[in-house]
Amino acid sequence: MQNNKDSNEAEAYQVRKLEITDKSKGFMELLQQLTVCDPVSDEEFQNRFEELKSCGDDHVICVIEDATSSKIIATGSVFIEKKFIRGCGKVGHIEDIVVDSSARGLQLGKKVVGFLVDHARSNGCYKVILDCSDDNKAFYEKCGFKEKEIQMVKYFI
Amino acid sequence: MQNNKDSNEAEAYQVRKLEITDKSKGFMELLQQLTVCDPVSDEEFQNRFEELKSCGDDHVICVIEDATSSKIIATGSVFIEKKFIRGCGKVGHIEDIVVDSSARGLQLGKKVVGFLVDHARSNGCYKVILDCSDDNKAFYEKCGFKEKEIQMVKYFI
Repeated sequence: MQNNKDSNEAEAYQVRKLEITDKSKGFMELLQQLTVCDPVSDEEFQNRFEELKSCGDDHVICVIEDATSSKIIATGSVFIEKKFIRGCGKVGHIEDIVVDSSARGLQLGKKVVGFLVDHARSNGCYKVILDCSDDNKAFYEKCGFKEKEIQMVKYFI
Repeated sequence: MQNNKDSNEAEAYQVRKLEITDKSKGFMELLQQLTVCDPVSDEEFQNRFEELKSCGDDHVICVIEDATSSKIIATGSVFIEKKFIRGCGKVGHIEDIVVDSSARGLQLGKKVVGFLVDHARSNGCYKVILDCSDDNKAFYEKCGFKEKEIQMVKYFI
């Protein structure tokens, strides 16, 4: 049985899908802690939000909102790639995991990754993959991932 | 100016998008050279083909057909992920590159990757990424890619 503190914490840090109003709750500012994230207008945000929404379960962005401050303090995404290999199998790709620097140590990253992994599994993926830096390898190992290949990149800009 | 041999070769090894009739031209057998690729029925193939086609330019599978044998001898895919970071940027993900074992040395892999990279660039991606084994790293470096991160995986089956 959970004690009050645990159940309060569980309630305070629930994972849910991104909502359009999250732009005003610091969602873009949170992403800036991950990488280059230029400001976007409300219209650009809405267009991208609608585009992703039209993918349904094939592309999901989740967030954790701090119930006290109403700020978005963690996020991550997963999209489902449909293949011909493995009997027309599907693969989940996890991207853009970030936890607010003021909310580290609360296991929110693990919670977000768990949510995305469960989403991929329940949507019939045979595996889920992600790319990370050497620094983050240990974290993803704790989430049940294993090192497999090398990520290669080509930049256009 | 190309000589006859060169122009014949260029014609013989053109990259084009996957067509539904490619199943009967050895497309699935080619994928078996890459990984586990269970046989799929014509109906399953058609359903997956239609699903991918509905994504338009956001998910493209290309092939090279040998004009002499009418066999598919090379393939690769790219899908375009839509993000909020980088000013609502887009990233191309290259997957499932394979060249028939009897057609190695003809630079078909480079041709397929070039096609997919061009597709990602012309569709507004700021970068294109892929995961590969250590053995294939040198090949992708020749295609203009650089090593960046570590790929982590979690299998469900």
